Amino acid sequence: MGKQRTNVSIAIVGCGTVGGAVALRLTQDQSLLQERTGLDLQLKYIVDMDFRRAEALGLPPSLFEKNLDRVLADPEVSIVVELVGGTTVAKDIILKALHAGKHVVTANKALLAHTGPELLKIARKNRATLSFEASCGGGIPIIRALYDGLIANRIDALYGIVNGTCNYILTQMTQEGISYKEALKEAQQAGLAEADPTLDVSGMDTAHKLTILASLAFGQRFTLEAIPVEGIDTLQNLDIQYGNELGYIVKLLAVASRLNGGVCLRVRPAFISRQHPLAWVSGPFNAISVYGHATGHTMYYGRGAGGSPTSSAVVADIVSAALGIHRAFFQTLRIWPDRTPKAKQVSPDELVSRFYLRFMVTDTVGVLAKIASVLGKNNISIASVLQKEIPEDLAKPSIAPVVIITHKSREKNLRKALEKIRTLDVVREDPVCIHILDEHEENL
Amino acid sequence: MGKQRTNVSIAIVGCGTVGGAVALRLTQDQSLLQERTGLDLQLKYIVDMDFRRAEALGLPPSLFEKNLDRVLADPEVSIVVELVGGTTVAKDIILKALHAGKHVVTANKALLAHTGPELLKIARKNRATLSFEASCGGGIPIIRALYDGLIANRIDALYGIVNGTCNYILTQMTQEGISYKEALKEAQQAGLAEADPTLDVSGMDTAHKLTILASLAFGQRFTLEAIPVEGIDTLQNLDIQYGNELGYIVKLLAVASRLNGGVCLRVRPAFISRQHPLAWVSGPFNAISVYGHATGHTMYYGRGAGGSPTSSAVVADIVSAALGIHRAFFQTLRIWPDRTPKAKQVSPDELVSRFYLRFMVTDTVGVLAKIASVLGKNNISIASVLQKEIPEDLAKPSIAPVVIITHKSREKNLRKALEKIRTLDVVREDPVCIHILDEHEENL
Repeated sequence: MGKQRTNVSIAIVGCGTVGGAVALRLTQDQSLLQERTGLDLQLKYIVDMDFRRAEALGLPPSLFEKNLDRVLADPEVSIVVELVGGTTVAKDIILKALHAGKHVVTANKALLAHTGPELLKIARKNRATLSFEASCGGGIPIIRALYDGLIANRIDALYGIVNGTCNYILTQMTQEGISYKEALKEAQQAGLAEADPTLDVSGMDTAHKLTILASLAFGQRFTLEAIPVEGIDTLQNLDIQYGNELGYIVKLLAVASRLNGGVCLRVRPAFISRQHPLAWVSGPFNAISVYGHATGHTMYYGRGAGGSPTSSAVVADIVSAALGIHRAFFQTLRIWPDRTPKAKQVSPDELVSRFYLRFMVTDTVGVLAKIASVLGKNNISIASVLQKEIPEDLAKPSIAPVVIITHKSREKNLRKALEKIRTLDVVREDPVCIHILDEHEENL
Repeated sequence: MGKQRTNVSIAIVGCGTVGGAVALRLTQDQSLLQERTGLDLQLKYIVDMDFRRAEALGLPPSLFEKNLDRVLADPEVSIVVELVGGTTVAKDIILKALHAGKHVVTANKALLAHTGPELLKIARKNRATLSFEASCGGGIPIIRALYDGLIANRIDALYGIVNGTCNYILTQMTQEGISYKEALKEAQQAGLAEADPTLDVSGMDTAHKLTILASLAFGQRFTLEAIPVEGIDTLQNLDIQYGNELGYIVKLLAVASRLNGGVCLRVRPAFISRQHPLAWVSGPFNAISVYGHATGHTMYYGRGAGGSPTSSAVVADIVSAALGIHRAFFQTLRIWPDRTPKAKQVSPDELVSRFYLRFMVTDTVGVLAKIASVLGKNNISIASVLQKEIPEDLAKPSIAPVVIITHKSREKNLRKALEKIRTLDVVREDPVCIHILDEHEENL
């Protein structure tokens, strides 16, 4: 070894935002990377159907190749970077590359969430590795933290803001007081939301990432379909502002925590105290809080999307693959979801936490008593009540918002109570219920 | 490889707070660690002069050994964990262990800051590795972020809160409005400050960590002695409160940033905007912001000290050493300070930034004009002036504080101006000058 340089040939498949950024990194920063890593990273192929973007970026046409099979047949290529995205073509590409014995680096969270264990198993069979730092948190080295830096910990909980689009929208709603629709439009204009934002705002992208993060954190195999997912598209600015007054910031949170001998995964908008560092993660930034039995609370913050930050994660994986480092982790550690047991994935029904509730009620005597009575019958005790003035733009004759913060309550009981309250004649709209996520207790 | 388990024998030298915590982790969590890592980590020796603490922790006396040479002669022991601390005995221990071909894991920031390159060179000569995740930021995997997750980045700046004692004291001063002395006393009572707190409050411990962090971040060798260091022990609550009113939080910051073709390292209390995530790092927590040319801003947060969090970092290093992972990084990467060039370490004289200034002046006509005139002559322009009322406890007849926030100014010029202002007869106390650290610009 010593001073001798290792030449590593790489093929990128898919030259979109991230693929283009990785290609630029590997070409423009070649000497920087050599200086820092001691490796000669050689981008040999850019595989795509259409090279207009690659051309526009000034990438050398000598790299362009439409035939993936030809690339995979090149024995010099040891690393294939899949940046096509999606769960169909991308899966074929990864399978072919693994069968050809290539190490694969990918940013594809949807595919990993659906079929990660299967792909890892095939990688293992072919003595190859599958690296996916770029799948969660963009440029934040959170996957590494889970398989390396925090390996000595039993992870007890993980709270993540892992979708920059949603966090940008919620930040704008919170700070500017604008509606969801207005904030979404702004995000689209700023290039931070897709024309069809469904995958992001529905919480589904967040659920993909949660599946991946939780599987490494807990060393168990989770099923995406079993995660209850709520998006941000029904959030009303009114509630964000009331929460704010009470010291809470709304975030779309991916949460995994141990519950009743299993693990409870969920994705939903939640209020988090301004004391919690996640509350200060604003705009398109992401952050993940991890609670380990040895470290206590650690948090990882950075840009969760975009070509440049994500390319940082992809190139780190290329370096790990080239050095055989990822192989050592992959062969020895027992946390990879192709070799861990299926999780006991429990529903949030038994979760005990506080809730923010808002009811739009007729402004008559005894309304609060009626609501309180239903809550009481379901073992939900009230911590505080705010009878708010009616915001002008919502003013309807004699209808007023009542905001209730509960003490810690069982989620199942709360749902039951809301079902009942919904039927009361004094309640004029569907009740709003937002979970309050308390700081996870450190047990050091 | 496959399912076969690797048995790894470990010796811990020094059974204090961290050593004891690591010993407990390796014994009590042995099956957890086996389950997660696939490794059989066997604590074989605890080396110390005095085993009272080890006994009190319930560690098995069969591990106790006073003779280091006997331990190093045991061919089964492949990893030696140095947790004695300090720069004398600890250095001998590490040298002996490296010469015996053992991998060394240490938390010793003082020793690394003084003689890191020398030790790394000896490790390399003996085909051993020296790992030091636990030297900075306790349980935060920041060293790994620098040599692994961020390896694709040219790092442009690093801002760190890396001393929990100081951060606790400053948090108490900020939130409770108490004096430095009172806050120090509280910290001592809470076990967060030593009886002799000099190493912490002087900023020296922070400088040790900055030397280590900057060397990996910039891939250059820095000299501890060339870092200008200011502590927190002269900070007055008055300034913390005035800064607070202006939207700033005071932190003891370790900063490294590129300047004039070199790198400027400095340790000092500074005001940071409440918009910056570092501003929200409170109590004994630490955090490090790293600005990479690809990732932009990433931040790493967690408990920066204490036995349990630090043990998490030590065990992560043990796993990396046992898997040969650290060796692969150590042999190939070019960022280790035994193989990087000496840095052009520039003084902060040429730094351009904003400053908070406070002058205690006689309450007479034309005072501000006199001060402004000196500032102007030195090319320092004033952004805002606060003529504060005299706090009751400081009330002296006709002496009043004037607080000035400057526009961006060259530090050298500011010093010159202050020298002059100090001599004005209307100025009755030494001027207070606190640097305002602006957000580092991301150049993505």
